[in-house]
Amino acid sequence: MVAAEIPDIVVGRLPLYLRALTQMASEGKLITSSQELGSRLGISPAQIRKDLSQFGEFGKQGTGYNIGFLAEQLRSILHVDQVWDVALVGVGDLGRAVAHYAGFLERGFRISALYDNDPAKIGTRIADLVIQDSAELVTDLRRRGISVTMLAVPATEAQAIADRLVEAGVKFILCYAPTSVRVPETVRVQYIDPVVHLQRMTYYRR
Amino acid sequence: MVAAEIPDIVVGRLPLYLRALTQMASEGKLITSSQELGSRLGISPAQIRKDLSQFGEFGKQGTGYNIGFLAEQLRSILHVDQVWDVALVGVGDLGRAVAHYAGFLERGFRISALYDNDPAKIGTRIADLVIQDSAELVTDLRRRGISVTMLAVPATEAQAIADRLVEAGVKFILCYAPTSVRVPETVRVQYIDPVVHLQRMTYYRR
Repeated sequence: MVAAEIPDIVVGRLPLYLRALTQMASEGKLITSSQELGSRLGISPAQIRKDLSQFGEFGKQGTGYNIGFLAEQLRSILHVDQVWDVALVGVGDLGRAVAHYAGFLERGFRISALYDNDPAKIGTRIADLVIQDSAELVTDLRRRGISVTMLAVPATEAQAIADRLVEAGVKFILCYAPTSVRVPETVRVQYIDPVVHLQRMTYYRR
Repeated sequence: MVAAEIPDIVVGRLPLYLRALTQMASEGKLITSSQELGSRLGISPAQIRKDLSQFGEFGKQGTGYNIGFLAEQLRSILHVDQVWDVALVGVGDLGRAVAHYAGFLERGFRISALYDNDPAKIGTRIADLVIQDSAELVTDLRRRGISVTMLAVPATEAQAIADRLVEAGVKFILCYAPTSVRVPETVRVQYIDPVVHLQRMTYYRR
């Protein structure tokens, strides 16, 4: 496996393949093809074959892909054959919705710590987690060895919190705040900003 | 302007440029450079200059970009120099958080219709909007000429709703459901699935 050389855009499609394969498995399917996957995902079969071939030989010409096997391989490649503890920072409307979302665990992630700086929220519970004071963020994340976080704070607070996440040794930040944060190159950030997605579409207005 | 030839990945960066410029303007800045923008965004200055040059001459060598002018141009290019009415389908935890989010209007979008199929929710209000029965979706969206929608329904319901959005003439769908939907080529879909973003990062575990 020559992981270092694979373009991030290819890496970005692997979770989509895994998601589609998992759905197929839940429908009772055992075998699929790049055609069928491509039709589900709106990605060309040639692209899918090319992407997957960078990681190994997962299918045979003419017989297709074994869904369970390929899904297992992708889980291993994406390192979600383990469950990652995730800390969520910021429990406003959005953070609360994310904390309630039931779809993380079966896909490799478990929200296991919540932080906020609002005294009215600190000490209250969401599901079985107590919201902790974000003042404890650095020591607490370090102690627990948590390396994945979701950031659902206002844009104005995002950089200050990101700095503390970096200080705490966090390696992966999913940022819901509508802003960009500066982190060292050893830390990865992905962004979710619905307006960015909407604008990327309205560009194509005819 | 040769819009048709510009790669979607370039288009996808324009909203980030616009967001950063808007932040700079709110900080009272008037002029910026590709270096400063790049440092905020984690994108190389050369990439930024190349992206922007595809749409026109926005800066002069050595004097940088006029923030207000460039932001205005980008708003026009992205067609958010108007406000788009947006319908939100699915008002669960996540849909509710999205409906409450105050950041849409100043960036070109206004949530102006809410739909759900839960009788307990239909007729109730979020902010100043009454949740409508999704059974009315097609006729209602058509009548109001709404072409932008956000889909925050469970994965199992997403395709059926997407089919009705297409029937209603919707052109842009932001899908929060963790699944892919099939739509005609004339309809654009963008996806927000936090697990896809998380997995794209954990791939890089060392």
